[in-house]
Order: sequence, then structure tokens, then C-alpha cells
Amino acid sequence: MVEKIYVTYNQVHKLCQEAADKILNEFKPHLMVAIGGGGYVPARILRSFLKKPGSPNISIQAIGLSLYESLGTDPVEVPGTKVTRTQWLDLTSLHMGNLIGKNILIVDEVDDTRTTLEYAVRELEKDVKEQAAREGREGEKTTFSIFVLHNKDKVKKGKLPDEMMSSGRYLAAQTVGDVWINYPWEATDIDEHDKNAALQEQQKKQQQQQS
Amino acid sequence: MVEKIYVTYNQVHKLCQEAADKILNEFKPHLMVAIGGGGYVPARILRSFLKKPGSPNISIQAIGLSLYESLGTDPVEVPGTKVTRTQWLDLTSLHMGNLIGKNILIVDEVDDTRTTLEYAVRELEKDVKEQAAREGREGEKTTFSIFVLHNKDKVKKGKLPDEMMSSGRYLAAQTVGDVWINYPWEATDIDEHDKNAALQEQQKKQQQQQS
Repeated sequence: MVEKIYVTYNQVHKLCQEAADKILNEFKPHLMVAIGGGGYVPARILRSFLKKPGSPNISIQAIGLSLYESLGTDPVEVPGTKVTRTQWLDLTSLHMGNLIGKNILIVDEVDDTRTTLEYAVRELEKDVKEQAAREGREGEKTTFSIFVLHNKDKVKKGKLPDEMMSSGRYLAAQTVGDVWINYPWEATDIDEHDKNAALQEQQKKQQQQQS
Repeated sequence: MVEKIYVTYNQVHKLCQEAADKILNEFKPHLMVAIGGGGYVPARILRSFLKKPGSPNISIQAIGLSLYESLGTDPVEVPGTKVTRTQWLDLTSLHMGNLIGKNILIVDEVDDTRTTLEYAVRELEKDVKEQAAREGREGEKTTFSIFVLHNKDKVKKGKLPDEMMSSGRYLAAQTVGDVWINYPWEATDIDEHDKNAALQEQQKKQQQQQS
């Protein structure tokens, strides 16, 4: 049986709060790209904690990516997964040129197979690079970093740039096993959900005391 | 002194849950447009409750609107407010044609001066109408409805279409006075925030018992 963990809204809130210092001091983001729907909630919370007095809010651009696990019946298709865009950057309001040379923080709730994150980083990097070439601004370095609430410690199908990982521009607030994560925004009974989360915390404490 | 009210995450969750029936049965949305940042959290929660077994999730398109209160120093400018787009519909992934004839639910956290909502409805309607004209599909009726967590009962600067209001396609989970609403995603101390919310509930109950 796959272990289930329950995460409350207030825990999500605190994970974002605790991550904010590192994000502000090390990633120094000029804007966030929230991968929807899972990235919406952490991105919105994070925005509150990334706000510096006297400065405007860091803007959030939302993109929508859906992961379709392939059934592997098509012999031509690479086994595994594919990603479909349901929303991408809006280039009428956000001029791609505005991303060149910026620090961009990609936000999602969970790094599971890493497929979605790989897609997001690769496609965003590609778009910015093409735009920089068009504008003759190849010299300006655009830097991507990642924040997720949870990283599942498992074999990943997707790969993130070596340089991103080695320079520490990947931050997971918590690393968990290959468990089923119940996020609060999916709870059909939020009181029951919170009870399960509290029970779980209690059991964890008891286990720690016994060991 | 302006009265402050504290809203917890779980209260937001339940407001969305309670609204879902009416939204499903009366608004029957094909997709949501979340006005960011405030609309992100309710839209994501609502998506869970609008999901029907066997059907895919209702997709969320995020738009970003910022309200700039004018200082009224420019005599040419209409006194009041203006809205700036930080993100609009992405027309590379979402073909505008896909909106024609659909039921579109616009989601935001609060209806304060109504300026942002007026802007969103007017501009979305305009875009769809123009696209319908281009495609010769003027006969297909696109229907907008609105869901907000809170409507402030006050004189509004913005105006929503009469037809939308008279046909009940505007839903505020709660109507409050012209108070200051503390949403949980803005709380610097979420435990303190929840305590204030609980205290407030307690005071409300005491007042009801006394009266």
C-alpha cells in the first residue's frame, strides 16, 4: 500500500514562509512562473513573503501544463509521458524581451516524475534564448530557479539542467518518499483532512520517542 | 477605524465547496478564468469541487490584473481607477475560438470597487465577440458568470452587465460590509491569523446570544 501523507493549508503556508529567505537572498527572483493548477497556491503565498517594503509585488505569470502518462501502446512514441500546454506565457502583456537577463522562479507544488518541470525549464529557456537572439542580447544571462513544496525521492523521468542543480537553484521545501500526497485544495472534507494530518503528526512523534 | 475580518484557509475552502453546487447546476462552466493573484487560490480549490467523475478537470486560464488607484492629479484622466494587464489569455495555447459559445466562470477573491471585474468582463466579452465575428460564429452565445469569495456591500465604481446581474450569474459566497479583509495568504503569522479568526467567531456568537 502506498503511504499517504496529509498536508494542511497552514503547513503549505509555513513551507513557503520558511523558503522565502533563501529565495530572496539566493535566487533573487524578478518574477515567478506558476505552473497551474498545483503551483497557483504556493506561488500566491510566496508572493506575500517575497514582497519587500517599498517595492512592488513580484509578478506571477501562470502557465498550465498537463501531464498525460502514455499507455505505451504506440511503439513510435518514447515510453513514458508527454506534456500538453493548456496555457503558456501571454506575449501580448508580457514582452518576452522583459524576461531576458532576469531571474525567473518556477513554482509548482510537487516534483514527482520531474517531467513537467523538465518541460517548463526547457521550453522557457528556449523561448528566452530565441528572443535574446532576435534582439541581439545573447550576452545577458537569464537564470531559472525552481521552488516546489515537495520533492519525491524517486527515480526521475525528467532531467533538470546540471548547472541548475549544481549551483543550488533547485529548492524543495520538503523531500518525501514516493508517497501519495494529499494537498488540502483537493480535500472533499477539509476538517477530516486536518484531523488526518494531526493524527499523522502525533504518530510520527510517538515513533520518534520510541526509537 | 475600519473593521478588519480574518478569513482562514479552511473557511475559503468551505466557501468554494458550498458554492460549487450552484456553479455546477446553474453556471455550468466549461472553463474558469482566474484573476491573479487573488483568484488563484479560490480557482484552484473550486476546480476540485467542479470535477465530475469521469470527466476531465475544468481548465483554468489565469489572467493578471493590477488596479492602480489614480491620485486624480491629471485633469484629463477620468477620476478613479485604472487597470493594467500583467497577463492576459495566451492565444497560442488557448485558441480564442474555443471560448465562443462556452460558459466562462471568472473567479476572484473579492469584489471591492468592482473596477477589476468590470474590466475583466468587458475585455473578455470584447475579445470573444471579435473572434466570433472573424469566424462567422456570431450566433453562438458565450456566457460569462462570476464567482468571488466576498462582495463588499458599498458603492461600486465598476459596473457589470445588467443581464448578468438580473439572470443571477453573479455569485459572492459572502457579502460583507466595507471592511478590511485579511486573507490567509497574506498573513505573516498564520497561527496568529487563525487565532484572530477564532476570536472573531466567538465574539460574533456572544453578540448573537446577547441580542
